[in-house]
Amino acid sequence: MKVYLDNHSATKLDERVFEAMLPYLKDYYGNPQSMHDLGSQTKQAIDLAREQVASLINVNANEIYFTSCGSESNNLAIKGVALAYKDKKKHIIVSQIEHFSVLNSARRLQNLGFEVSYLPVDKEGFILLDELEKSIKEDTILVSIQHSNPEIGTIQDIKKVVEICHKRGVLVHTDAVSSCGVVPIDVKELGVDLLSLSANQFHGPKGIAALYIKKGVKVVPLIDGGVQENNIRAGTENVAGIVGMGVAAEIAKQELEQNYKKMVKLRDKLIKEISARINYVYLNGSIEKRLPNNVNFSFEFIEGEGLTLLLNSKGIYVTSGSSCASKNLKMSHVLTAIGVDPAVGQGTITMTLSKYNTEEEINYVLEVLPELVEKLRAISPLYSYFLQTGQRKPAGPGTEYE
Amino acid sequence: MKVYLDNHSATKLDERVFEAMLPYLKDYYGNPQSMHDLGSQTKQAIDLAREQVASLINVNANEIYFTSCGSESNNLAIKGVALAYKDKKKHIIVSQIEHFSVLNSARRLQNLGFEVSYLPVDKEGFILLDELEKSIKEDTILVSIQHSNPEIGTIQDIKKVVEICHKRGVLVHTDAVSSCGVVPIDVKELGVDLLSLSANQFHGPKGIAALYIKKGVKVVPLIDGGVQENNIRAGTENVAGIVGMGVAAEIAKQELEQNYKKMVKLRDKLIKEISARINYVYLNGSIEKRLPNNVNFSFEFIEGEGLTLLLNSKGIYVTSGSSCASKNLKMSHVLTAIGVDPAVGQGTITMTLSKYNTEEEINYVLEVLPELVEKLRAISPLYSYFLQTGQRKPAGPGTEYE
Repeated sequence: MKVYLDNHSATKLDERVFEAMLPYLKDYYGNPQSMHDLGSQTKQAIDLAREQVASLINVNANEIYFTSCGSESNNLAIKGVALAYKDKKKHIIVSQIEHFSVLNSARRLQNLGFEVSYLPVDKEGFILLDELEKSIKEDTILVSIQHSNPEIGTIQDIKKVVEICHKRGVLVHTDAVSSCGVVPIDVKELGVDLLSLSANQFHGPKGIAALYIKKGVKVVPLIDGGVQENNIRAGTENVAGIVGMGVAAEIAKQELEQNYKKMVKLRDKLIKEISARINYVYLNGSIEKRLPNNVNFSFEFIEGEGLTLLLNSKGIYVTSGSSCASKNLKMSHVLTAIGVDPAVGQGTITMTLSKYNTEEEINYVLEVLPELVEKLRAISPLYSYFLQTGQRKPAGPGTEYE
Repeated sequence: MKVYLDNHSATKLDERVFEAMLPYLKDYYGNPQSMHDLGSQTKQAIDLAREQVASLINVNANEIYFTSCGSESNNLAIKGVALAYKDKKKHIIVSQIEHFSVLNSARRLQNLGFEVSYLPVDKEGFILLDELEKSIKEDTILVSIQHSNPEIGTIQDIKKVVEICHKRGVLVHTDAVSSCGVVPIDVKELGVDLLSLSANQFHGPKGIAALYIKKGVKVVPLIDGGVQENNIRAGTENVAGIVGMGVAAEIAKQELEQNYKKMVKLRDKLIKEISARINYVYLNGSIEKRLPNNVNFSFEFIEGEGLTLLLNSKGIYVTSGSSCASKNLKMSHVLTAIGVDPAVGQGTITMTLSKYNTEEEINYVLEVLPELVEKLRAISPLYSYFLQTGQRKPAGPGTEYE
């Protein structure tokens, strides 16, 4: 049996999305900017897709800008706003557990003379709202806080973030890449000024994403050139990708409730049963405000990488860290920020469900996982030390288990 | 009959490319960064595609960086180099007939405190090499000159550009988007430091392109984030697009010679016969150093837009300007730079051939085009004035024909 539980890294394309893309890969190949019938054809197709994506998050179609990936959306939002308002304000705030595309955009801006504050989070991964309030200065132009964390699943109170920021005249961007299509997102209700989403998180194709920019908010393009995307994002439109994202958004919206319920049930079974069947395991993230598809456990005395590879040999696909992170990192920046002991944190795996997972698959995982953990612990010097002494080896500065 | 002659704006996907992409759209959906079998599968696929693209332009695979479009490649090259060396040198040189993604990247850099020189060209569109030499200063870091112009087809002597620049320690980028896959490109022979190419110019998919960066040349990423593309371009890889670009590059390389010959024959027939069958027409660009697929004529006394629409009604698809330009422009910046009279230049259409065009199609165009030009001239007050007086109405500052 094959069980794919790495749906934050990539999702399977929905068959209906593929069917919708097909004509735009094969026969309708005109450039949407061309003034002939083959151009009009594709122009109409991207207009429709823009409506479909806008509808998923309850905004106007002319506030949706297509990009090539969630990372580009985050870069465009953060660098774009910072550069657009640079003559007035030069301070931005991000949380410590943002995606690398947010963190590294912020670092890039620091090199260009901007000031950045990195907000701490509590042990479940919630940003400290008091700290946010204290961090805002006269000079603050933008706060970027993720809607949910793809690794530990924690869902932030973005509405509250917006309240705090707007009171002080600060724009808010949220990286909702791991939320859109998975949990209900209503931008009008959240009140954010910019929001990133990516098609491949909800069974759309890779290579296509979008940024919502509220009407009136200024953004300097990342990719300058032609008039595409209302002069905000140059480059010939990825028509098939855009069409795919549109249809994926429509399907995600229609089926969100039923998929949510299905995934929560499987997620909770995984969490409950793993906790029950395996000793010395620790769930990371919040239990209550958690993505319906996220399970993240630290297994003490083992390494996440080893467990990932053993699971792979049984046809179970998970991830031991962020798919964007260097494979050399022993523990992710997210686990560090929530204060996980590195000795425990290095034994972490993330399982992300999708609508395609079944109870049968979950039962198989629950059957296999305890054996594999046992197997890895059996060859772990740390575990045998623990069994002999009843004590954990004191953790050094993250190096002694290498 | 349908005749697609807008192959610079977009090309039809090669059926073999589509077949190669198919499994990566449907079954092989893993994230190449994932440490399981589904990740390895796609990782291997992009490794192969990188080799295929590198082979098309004779470079090493680790010098190829995938991006989402030619515009992104150009932005990454120009902004990336400028920002990487900004503490040492702050002057760049581009030609006046570059693509908007080059020109507007340069303008963006001006806003950030860089200095830009815009090199003039002669009446066939060749950059003035003397002027280039004179423009280079102690402070010059980069020269960006397109390999060929997609609108008028002129192919530059990039080898000579490199000679001039390298003597002075200046890096050279060439936008080879309209050349790669169409004319032979050997980077080792050209000697450039950076080169942009795009899959959809040679029957690969939209939404995928690449930048060649010579080993040792520093570039600041446009899209910061994860470790993808050797830390130069973050974002989950567009696997199907990358696979498609690889196969398209391989096919383009294998079939380049035969396609070149085929297109030159049709191009020359179009040029010869249009000149013979229609009065008051002017070929723009060079005759000798010209893209094999490019035909660009100015038809006096009519508007290119009107002709484009009439041709469309006959199933012939051409473009009256750059697909990236605002539709409000009466004449392109390229025609302006080569000194075309605006009264004539506004009646310009570009026809770009591909390997799929046939002699039968070209015969159809040659049959239809003279009639349509005649039809438009019959309702042109300028033409009747000319017929009555034998004189052209003097052109105002580009406004009187609106």
